[in-house]
Amino acid sequence: MSQIITLTTDFGLQDHYVSTMKAVILGIAPNVRLVDISHQIPPQDVMAGAWVVKNAASYFPDGTIHLVVIDPGVGTNRIPVALQIGNQFFVGPDNGVFSLIADENEYKACQLTDRSYWGKNTSNTFHGRDIFAPVAAHLANGVALNKIGKPVEKLVTYRWATPISDKDGIQGWIVHIDRFGNLISNIPEELIRNLDLARRMKIYVGNTILHELVKSYGYVEDGEPAAYIGSSGMLEIAINKGNACEMLGVHKGAQISIVLQK
Amino acid sequence: MSQIITLTTDFGLQDHYVSTMKAVILGIAPNVRLVDISHQIPPQDVMAGAWVVKNAASYFPDGTIHLVVIDPGVGTNRIPVALQIGNQFFVGPDNGVFSLIADENEYKACQLTDRSYWGKNTSNTFHGRDIFAPVAAHLANGVALNKIGKPVEKLVTYRWATPISDKDGIQGWIVHIDRFGNLISNIPEELIRNLDLARRMKIYVGNTILHELVKSYGYVEDGEPAAYIGSSGMLEIAINKGNACEMLGVHKGAQISIVLQK
Amino acid sequence: MSQIITLTTDFGLQDHYVSTMKAVILGIAPNVRLVDISHQIPPQDVMAGAWVVKNAASYFPDGTIHLVVIDPGVGTNRIPVALQIGNQFFVGPDNGVFSLIADENEYKACQLTDRSYWGKNTSNTFHGRDIFAPVAAHLANGVALNKIGKPVEKLVTYRWATPISDKDGIQGWIVHIDRFGNLISNIPEELIRNLDLARRMKIYVGNTILHELVKSYGYVEDGEPAAYIGSSGMLEIAINKGNACEMLGVHKGAQISIVLQK
Repeated sequence: MSQIITLTTDFGLQDHYVSTMKAVILGIAPNVRLVDISHQIPPQDVMAGAWVVKNAASYFPDGTIHLVVIDPGVGTNRIPVALQIGNQFFVGPDNGVFSLIADENEYKACQLTDRSYWGKNTSNTFHGRDIFAPVAAHLANGVALNKIGKPVEKLVTYRWATPISDKDGIQGWIVHIDRFGNLISNIPEELIRNLDLARRMKIYVGNTILHELVKSYGYVEDGEPAAYIGSSGMLEIAINKGNACEMLGVHKGAQISIVLQK
Repeated sequence: MSQIITLTTDFGLQDHYVSTMKAVILGIAPNVRLVDISHQIPPQDVMAGAWVVKNAASYFPDGTIHLVVIDPGVGTNRIPVALQIGNQFFVGPDNGVFSLIADENEYKACQLTDRSYWGKNTSNTFHGRDIFAPVAAHLANGVALNKIGKPVEKLVTYRWATPISDKDGIQGWIVHIDRFGNLISNIPEELIRNLDLARRMKIYVGNTILHELVKSYGYVEDGEPAAYIGSSGMLEIAINKGNACEMLGVHKGAQISIVLQK
Repeated sequence: MSQIITLTTDFGLQDHYVSTMKAVILGIAPNVRLVDISHQIPPQDVMAGAWVVKNAASYFPDGTIHLVVIDPGVGTNRIPVALQIGNQFFVGPDNGVFSLIADENEYKACQLTDRSYWGKNTSNTFHGRDIFAPVAAHLANGVALNKIGKPVEKLVTYRWATPISDKDGIQGWIVHIDRFGNLISNIPEELIRNLDLARRMKIYVGNTILHELVKSYGYVEDGEPAAYIGSSGMLEIAINKGNACEMLGVHKGAQISIVLQK
């Protein structure tokens, strides 16, 4: 069983960037297993990267190392870091990309300072290849976190507005649109379960009102919108066999509310 | 030599969905080899998935397990299945996505009913992660098909219209447009070989008439259309160094005819 | 440690083409490690493929085999080749796709003539699957270069115009636009270092004039253009947190000049 390194970047797949990171890793840790999480994070969208990593990481086995390179400030004073959460590791820039995972979990972090674990030459614009990939590979080879740098108390964290709730309802936001055009909110299932679900509800999003939660979009007619708890454990809106983002004209950042009727 | 699991989905590559399926697989079958067939199947296009799987599967070695998740009816009453064809296995929803491969081959199928081979929690919208991926991983670990569920006699099958032919010609349809814009028909080479190829032919597609089959698009001038037997063994139309779909204005579903001259 | 085969094509990821090449390789060399460099080379753009391969190859370990299939002339008289450069191998069509890597390095090349190392059936339109993938797999299995074909003295080479320089400046061209919209030129760092950098400079590209080289785009304000040495060792132009290609309206092939002031 080989150790897993995952890769999440905003590099896209048309250029050679992702492959050079993999080449560097395999030069140091030839038996590691590489798994792409996504390279289609919108350019420079640190929080979109944070969201994808948070949603993927917990499914990976113990020992997995997550290499996360959405790094618009590369070469400036943002520091390179590695962190341990449970039995998993994360390597990347300390620019908020670890906000969502670090906010919900205990972590031990260190600033990458020991250049003996970096590549031979360090460019100013591609620390993914020259710093983060080699460090991830050395971690996979069993180098301890405290060897590669010095402790960092507190990582840069950005927070998304959290949903607001009282006994009459919840207001949240659409934080991700997936490939299907499904609208994924920041309202977790637990918050909804706290409501008195015997009362009738209205769910407002864009110009659309829905009147109930269903098990899955497959439970409404084709072309109709559905509200349900998605696979990330969050309230989602989809159109059965359609694209909710396009058809409802609702985009990332839009409000979504659950209002219980009197 | 490790067992191969291939993945074919309509999930795209921007979200974490594909990687969570891989994570689940590697948690159960750490030494399996993962090969992506395509994650760019158009959303909910079951038959496009069926076509891609049919064209890829036969090139894989014995023992390969094909995980196919184009699953618009997830969480409803379509059943989850696994099937064996020759020495390969297929796992996914019984919604027609195995139509093309099952139509041409003997198969043994079973409905996935033994929840001990599923993930711990089963969401209503992501059986790829919660049912199909774990079952594929257990198959890779050597669990027998008849352990994971109960026999199914007949899978859901959709059929594409088959080409119509007589001694004077063949009428078929464009069933796939590839990345190059090449038009791939459902007319197999064998059907063409049955014609009296000493007679002159006309090939009609959209507003274009071609007068012969060539070995490859490279045998016509740049920018000119060519008809030839493609790498899938089907009649194809391409523009040499161009995009036939765009330049000829011909799309999936269009008719294509071979007419022999008197 | 297993041998690495990389894959670079213009096949895209929606079709089954890439996966059938991988299937063929794994049937012959089951333990090889597969790394995608890019499958998003623009269709038929041999030089774009040449550029990506040149930029990725040197990061891979000794023994790596690079399978490169941008092959608009498939099935015609362009010959299939394999070449060795240092301790790496390259397999693909002799159509210029190895120009950039062969131009800068000593190579030993051979034409693929021994059909015992090809697939059983050879289509006219998919030599990637039927010739190049099997040959790459046999090379990974240790078959010697001189076994698979006969020596070729000189490969087809295309050259990009090289930059023109004198003591007052350099004129070059934009040869690649990456996913971020960064403009990558053919002006190498060494050529710039030869200039008298104590003199003030102007850098002209499109309608934009820049007055200095910075370490990285992170050193200019958001939305401002920056000139710097990129991770490929070439002069690049980027917009900090923006898309230089779109915002400056500069495309591949545009001129870029460094002019030293009197």
